[in-house]
Parts: sequence; structure tokens; C-alpha cells
Amino acid sequence: MNNFLDNVAVAQVNMHVGNFEENTNKIIQYIEQAKRLNKKIVIFPELVVCGYPPRDFLEFSDFIERAEATIINIKEHCKGITVILGLPTENPNPKGKKLFNSAAIISYEKTIGFAHKSLLPNYDIFDEYRYFEPNHHFEVFDIKGEKVGVTICEDIWNVQDEKLYTLDPVAELAKKGATTIINLSASPFSVEQQKKRKVIVAENAIQHQVNMIYSNYVGAQTELIFDGGSCIVNSKGELLAQAPYFEECLLVKESPVSEAMSKEEAVFNALVIGVRDYFGKLGFNKAILGLSGGIDSAVTYAIAVEALGSENVLGVLMPSQYSSDHSIDDAKQLVQNYKGVSEIFTIQSLYEAYESKLAKVFEGLPFGLAEENLQARLRGVLLMAMSNKFGNILLNTSNKSEAAVGYGTLYGDMCGGLSVLGDVYKTDVFALAKWINRNQELIPWNTINKPPSAELRPNQKDSDSLPDYEVLDKILFEYIENRKGPNQIVELGYDPNEVKRILRMVNLNEHKRYQTPPILRVSDKAFGMGRRLPIVAKYLI
Amino acid sequence: MNNFLDNVAVAQVNMHVGNFEENTNKIIQYIEQAKRLNKKIVIFPELVVCGYPPRDFLEFSDFIERAEATIINIKEHCKGITVILGLPTENPNPKGKKLFNSAAIISYEKTIGFAHKSLLPNYDIFDEYRYFEPNHHFEVFDIKGEKVGVTICEDIWNVQDEKLYTLDPVAELAKKGATTIINLSASPFSVEQQKKRKVIVAENAIQHQVNMIYSNYVGAQTELIFDGGSCIVNSKGELLAQAPYFEECLLVKESPVSEAMSKEEAVFNALVIGVRDYFGKLGFNKAILGLSGGIDSAVTYAIAVEALGSENVLGVLMPSQYSSDHSIDDAKQLVQNYKGVSEIFTIQSLYEAYESKLAKVFEGLPFGLAEENLQARLRGVLLMAMSNKFGNILLNTSNKSEAAVGYGTLYGDMCGGLSVLGDVYKTDVFALAKWINRNQELIPWNTINKPPSAELRPNQKDSDSLPDYEVLDKILFEYIENRKGPNQIVELGYDPNEVKRILRMVNLNEHKRYQTPPILRVSDKAFGMGRRLPIVAKYLI
Repeated sequence: MNNFLDNVAVAQVNMHVGNFEENTNKIIQYIEQAKRLNKKIVIFPELVVCGYPPRDFLEFSDFIERAEATIINIKEHCKGITVILGLPTENPNPKGKKLFNSAAIISYEKTIGFAHKSLLPNYDIFDEYRYFEPNHHFEVFDIKGEKVGVTICEDIWNVQDEKLYTLDPVAELAKKGATTIINLSASPFSVEQQKKRKVIVAENAIQHQVNMIYSNYVGAQTELIFDGGSCIVNSKGELLAQAPYFEECLLVKESPVSEAMSKEEAVFNALVIGVRDYFGKLGFNKAILGLSGGIDSAVTYAIAVEALGSENVLGVLMPSQYSSDHSIDDAKQLVQNYKGVSEIFTIQSLYEAYESKLAKVFEGLPFGLAEENLQARLRGVLLMAMSNKFGNILLNTSNKSEAAVGYGTLYGDMCGGLSVLGDVYKTDVFALAKWINRNQELIPWNTINKPPSAELRPNQKDSDSLPDYEVLDKILFEYIENRKGPNQIVELGYDPNEVKRILRMVNLNEHKRYQTPPILRVSDKAFGMGRRLPIVAKYLI
Repeated sequence: MNNFLDNVAVAQVNMHVGNFEENTNKIIQYIEQAKRLNKKIVIFPELVVCGYPPRDFLEFSDFIERAEATIINIKEHCKGITVILGLPTENPNPKGKKLFNSAAIISYEKTIGFAHKSLLPNYDIFDEYRYFEPNHHFEVFDIKGEKVGVTICEDIWNVQDEKLYTLDPVAELAKKGATTIINLSASPFSVEQQKKRKVIVAENAIQHQVNMIYSNYVGAQTELIFDGGSCIVNSKGELLAQAPYFEECLLVKESPVSEAMSKEEAVFNALVIGVRDYFGKLGFNKAILGLSGGIDSAVTYAIAVEALGSENVLGVLMPSQYSSDHSIDDAKQLVQNYKGVSEIFTIQSLYEAYESKLAKVFEGLPFGLAEENLQARLRGVLLMAMSNKFGNILLNTSNKSEAAVGYGTLYGDMCGGLSVLGDVYKTDVFALAKWINRNQELIPWNTINKPPSAELRPNQKDSDSLPDYEVLDKILFEYIENRKGPNQIVELGYDPNEVKRILRMVNLNEHKRYQTPPILRVSDKAFGMGRRLPIVAKYLI
């Protein structure tokens, strides 16, 4: 049986949505590489010709035609090899959605068949039923004497306890005699997903006594980060080979099994790739960000430097009259530790210019939120002026805890082209910082150890208006990730008033999150396209 | 046959997402009103107990329990009457999605049955397959001697030429003997939708020889505006009664058929309701906006005044050294015409404060985009400071043409809690302005007649960097609404270079639109939740 697996190569690739020319060239390169290794079958991920997720570009017939046209070019390189790759194809039935999410099986320059995706995920970040007709027709292909069933991503996921679908495509294919199941995936990274995926692949193998060949992407597409983890598993569920995480590669049975990473290492790597690909694929190479001396901007800076190089990351200090000396020192120390570049602007004079402009309309009213936000916003204006002038992208430094409760200023510290830590809770930001410092002090220990503060009024501390982050983050996790209601959370032992207050803050701040930059997704439930809530609603408010 | 229709009342209501208490009270009020009119059946829209769209709140079991619990209260009021209303219910099958999108049929205090939605729209703003299992089981209910089939919204839409689904629920129900089809809808307004809806209802009646009773929402939920148009149609497709647009009402067969509106009147009414409900349902009543003397801010102001009253709308003039005299005069005249309130701030001193702060880093670099954006952004900061101080919501004044090509400053004139005109092309903004002035000059004619300009540098005009709006808007419409590719648009007779340049601008500015406020939707394809495109992509760029 394993003779077949000896012939297989899996291309774990980083594609660029809509970049048909580059994507085609990369596919051809990997086909050629597989040939050089004397492999007879090479497998690419889901929708590989156009990149994943193409989203509403799928509604453009022009886009679909360009995607289908790539095959003409690719076919010419399939002499002596079978190529299985993902692409959108047209549904010939006049009823139903116009497209299938398909795998083409190209053998020796001929398309010998297609397999279409049956299970179309539509939860979290997925929108597949928006575009695709589900498949109900199962065919087993004879490839090099092996009975092969071809599935796409979600098709192998209905083996979980909670069955989202009434159909199990792998069971259907096994019934028809398949002894190897190939899966073309676009399975984005999250800490939890890395573990689940391995279990799912093995479970399919064991339940149906089939070899499993699993192919996934690496690289980032806007907010989605793909970590790879492509693998080959035999019909006993044994992992024969697994591709390294976060790296392009051509996986073959002889490849070693890559090692698992700690949570911090995985998240750090994911965020670095997220930043690098956001910039690279948009054609930028320089970042700018504000450095407050606090932990969020410091960790964001560390990730940006790893992604782009310290010479390409401009750290900007913008102290006000409320900034403490240690904040400036800590920010300077951070930049020095990374041998980076920085600018400093005091903002008091700008703040006073606004104060005097607004003096008449604000007359007799006390200092408050408007004045706090003003400082954050005029910093945003300075950063964006430099971003426009120098052509670098502003990185947003908000964390997930802040984004959840609305502890941030819209058009102020919430500015940016990309949010690096917006899916990392504050307590996890601390853990990341410590992991970054595991060998040497890169982030000043004082930044890590001092109590968090926005420094927008005298002696302000986060703990003045927010519960302790240890408690806050746990309640937020139950609400956001686990979708528990207030009573269910209180039953876990939290204070009812605290729970009520926090859930209310989350729901009241939907309008702010609507206008935040895209957030690199590293959890199972990130703010952004995967969490869709109405702004105007009265639930838990 | 028409005896049955004599017994029917249709509640065309404005609900509030998640506000179970108020929604329940309103449902009960309408039931009581129907009883007073001696009606025996009263019909409410889709998911009426929780409001539409509840979006990911549907993933919270707490939310579902609260929605289901409303029925206990409502039942007590169903003595002597049959109530048909929409709510989410749990799917008892352990396989498949957890919920159905259901109609409960409550007769004389007992739930006599449920009908579940079969066709789950997942295009544009719809996400229903995200939450609901599609129904495949059809039952005809005997209500007052009539064979009644109950359908939900999309269930009646598969009679179009382009069939998105392989199933036709109305045909299934007609096969089972239904002679009246009830439809519980949540069908948002768009100019095109108003017309289509009438045709669809009549077509169902004629094709299947059934009476049609169609119930829809009015009012706005964040960006979605519901216009009503609930109606009763006999089995010949004749319109017997139709509820007025944009008004709550209890429709009965004896009601007159409401008149159709012109496009401008419909859009104006929709936007007014959109603003009014956004503010009202969030608990706000005052707006602020910048007035440039240009047409977009003038039309936004007119809509806001209609929605909230001129005493609740603060117009803010913020002239710079590049503003022309007529801009200030036009803005002042606008406010005077509406007997409104305004403030004026010159921004030159603030601009110079930034200039001097940035002088060192910008040394030797020419005036450019950074300086233009700076003016827009410091205006945004002033407006937001007042918004924070006085608790009014900033209205965004961008139009759809600008939003499409990225002709606007992120965190500058793109600020705001709600975009009023973001789904109205510039040429349609002009048409709206003229309609507003149909009886008297409210918007100064000079605002309408002068060439559009952002006034961010000397003698700037929109036409310096953009094609003529007449051409631009048509090309944008083909690309955005009709999803035509570049070749298809060129075939319509447009200049290839112009087409290429415009489509490129649209795709390059996805990152800006990602951070815009929610946009009131009045077309079939608005920016926002109904148009989902990747920021990082290389298609037509």
C-alpha cells in the first residue's frame, strides 16, 4: 500500500490572492521540483490558482475565467506526473450557485477529472456557501493503481462530536472503495487549530482505514495566517511525515516530522509572518508605530523588527505632560536594544493649540474623555502624516482586551493599516514579551513589570477603570471565544456585577471595532470578519 | 376563497435587535389591535422576536433562550386569534446546524406548529447559512378552513430566471394543496428591490395559483433599512392591499394600495429613517457634522435635519487658507435656510502648529498628500472632540464615488459614526439635492452648481484627479453593482485606460473602506457587510 505514498509530494505554498501569474509560476516550480525528486503525484492546497480567500472576487466572471485559464499553462508541465490542485469551476447545472470549489486532477497533461467540495464552512471567517454549490456526487480515482478519494478542507471535518453537516464525504468515498484520501486545505492558523487538525486527520485515517494526504497553505492573506502543517498519515493513523510550520516546502514521505512549538513561539511566528506578508504582498517594506513605553507597543515593535528588519521600523515617541519619565526611557531603551531608529515629538504645544481653538465651545466644562481622546488623536495625526510622507504603513498596537472593552480611542491609538496584537489578550501579550526576552533583555523589563497605563491624565492606571487583566481576560474569553451568556459565566464563579459590566462594555463598543484595522487572527474567534455583530442592538446593554 | 383574506392582518413593524422586552410589547400591541379589528390571523415578519439581523448573537445559547422565552408571554394574548411570527428555534437533529429560522403558528394560545426556512440566502448582506439548517420538510396548515403554506423571505424568491437553489418551497407547498402562501420577510430596501419584490410576490401567486400574504419590516438596523411594502395579493396576482412604505402599520385587505415613490423620494426617506433609527436605537438624539460648502455635506445635513430636527444638528465650518469665500458663504446659507445651529473654526493656526512640529522630519520635501490629509485629519480631531464633549454622533459625509476610488482621508473626512451617503453615487447626490430643493431653495443653488473640490490645496478641483463624475459613476456601477470585468466594461464603449485606472483605484483602496463607518444601504451592492473583498490581493492592480 505504501508504495503509493512513496510517489507523493505535497506542495505547502504561500500564494497571493488574485496574482494569477505569480501563482502559476510557483505551481509550475513545485511541479518541476516534484519531478526532480521522481515523484509521480503532487498535491497543492485549496483554490491554489487564485489564492485563499478570494472572497467576492469569486463573483466576477472575469476573475473565474482568469483562474480557469491558469490550467492551460500548468497542464504543459504535467508530463509524467499527476497534479491535483484547487480552483473554482463553473457549475453546469442552471439551478444552484454558479460555482464549485474544486480540485482538478491533471494527469500527463490531461484533466482526468474534478472533485468538488461537499461541506462548505460558513462559520467564523468562512463564507463558502456564499459562492459555491455543495457537491453530492462522489467518485474514486485510480491513480497509479491506488483508489484515491479527493476532498477539500472541511470535507474531512465532519468526524467531530458536534456534526455541523448531515453528510460525511470521507465515509462516502470509503464506501466507494477509496484507500487513500487526499485533502486540499486552506486551514488558517490558530493555537487551537494546530492541535485539532492533527487529531482530525488521524481520526479520518482510523475511522475509514485510509491513508490521508493533507495539504495546507503557509503565509498570510490580510488577517488570515496559514501555518502549513501539511502531512502524510497512513491508514493506522500514524504520522509518517509533517511539513514544518510557517515555511514553504515540498513534503514527501521521507521528510522528517516537524516539531511542535510552544504557544508563544507559534503565535510570535504567526504574527511575524502576518506582518511580513501584509507588507510584502502590498508592495511595502517600511513600518511606523508609536512607542509609549508600554508593553503593547513594545511587543508590536519586536514583531515588526523581526518581520521587516530594525532599519525598516520607525518608532515614534510622542510624550505629553502626562507621560512619565520612565515611559520615555523605556521606549528609548527598547529601540536601543534592537539597534533601531526613532523620532521624538513632544505633543504639549499641539494639545494647547487645540485647547485654545476649542476654549470657547468647551468653556466651563471639566477635563474629561474629550481631552484624553484629543491627545491620542493628535498623535494619530502625526503618525499618519509621516506614514503618508514616507510611504510606510502605520502599525496599530491595540491588544484584544482593549479592543473588547473599547479601551482605546477611535482615530487615535486605534489608527493603523494592520493590528498586530488585536487578537492577543493582554495577559498573553505579557507572556509573549517574556518569551521574546527568553535569552536576553530585548523588551525592557521595566516595560513588562510596571502597571499598565494609558497616561492620558495624571497618574492614570488601566486598573482605575478596568478589572484586573487576569480576571478580565478570562471573562472575555468565556464571552468571545466560548459564546457563553452572563448566567453561564457567573456560574463559573465570577462576580455577577463584574460580568454584567464587562459584557455590556463589549457590546457597547461594537461601533469602535467596526472601524479598526484588520487584525491578525491567531485565535479561534478574532475580532473582524469572523465575528459579526450588529452595532445597533440592545442585548446585555 | 377571499373570505380567508378578509380575516388577515399583517403587522409591518420596526423592531430593535436583541431588545426582547420592547419587541414583545410591540408584538402584543399589534395582536390586540388586530383583535379590535376583528381579524382572526395576524402575521409578523421574519425573526421578529429578536429583530433582524441578529447576526452572531445567534451563536449565543443565552440569546436563543431569551428569544424562545418571548413566546410564553405572547401566547397569553393569542386568545381568539392565530398569530404567525418569526423566531429562531433549535434543530432537534444532532447533525447539522443548531438552529432553524422558523415561523411559529400560535392559535388560541397553543403553538400548533412551526415552519422552517428552506432557502437560506448567503449573498450580499445575508449570512443565513452561517446559523441555520435548511428545511426540507413541507407542511400545509389548516387555518380557518384555508390550506395555508408558511414560508420565510427567500423561500419565495426561487421563481427568478437565475435560480440560486435547486428547490422551490412554494411549489412544494402548492403540491401539498396550499391555496394561500404566507411569507414572513426581512427584505431590506434598495431602489431595485422595491420593484423586484412586487414582481416576485405576483409571480408566485400566478405560477402556483395561490393567495400571497407578504409581511416585511420597516425601520433601520445599523446599515440595513427596511421599507415595508407588506401586501396582500390574490391568486390571480392582483394586488389587493399594500402597506405604506417606511411606516409602521397593521395592513388589512381593506387598506388602500400605497403609492409608489420616485427614486429620489424613496432614497431620501430611506436615509432619513436610517439616521433616525441609528440615533434613536442607540439612545442618541444629536448629530454633528462638518460643513464644507460642498454638496455632500449639504445633503447629509438636510437628511440629518429631517431625521433629528435642526436644533439637534450642529454644523461645523472649518475653513483653511485654501477654502474659498463661497464655501463659507454657502455653508452659512445652508444652515440659515434650515434655521439651524453652527460653529466656525479656522484651522490655519492648528495646521501651522503641525507644520512646525513636523518641520524637521519633513525638511526639503515638497507639499503633497501628507499635507492635504493633515488638514482633513485635524478637522476630524476637532469634530470628534466636540462629539465626545457634547455626546453627539459625528455624521460622515462621503459619497459612494469617493469611497469607491479612495478619494477621502482615512481618520479625516472618513471619520464618523454613520455614513449617510456612502451608498449614493455623486451624480445621485446631485439628483437628491435637486429633489430636496423641488419646492424652495434649501440647499444653496451655488453648492449644487459649482464644480466639486476638496479645497486642500490652491484651486483644487475633483476633476484634476478624477474623471468626470458622469463617466466615473457609470464605470463604477458596472464594476461594483454588475460585477463586470475590465474587458466587459470596455465593450460597453468606455476608454480602456480610463477603465483600467478606475478599477485599479477601487481595488487599491479596499484598505480604506475596511475602516469606514457603517454605510446606510440603499443600493443592491453597498460597501460594507454586503461587499467582502480582500485588502491584500493583486487583481486588476
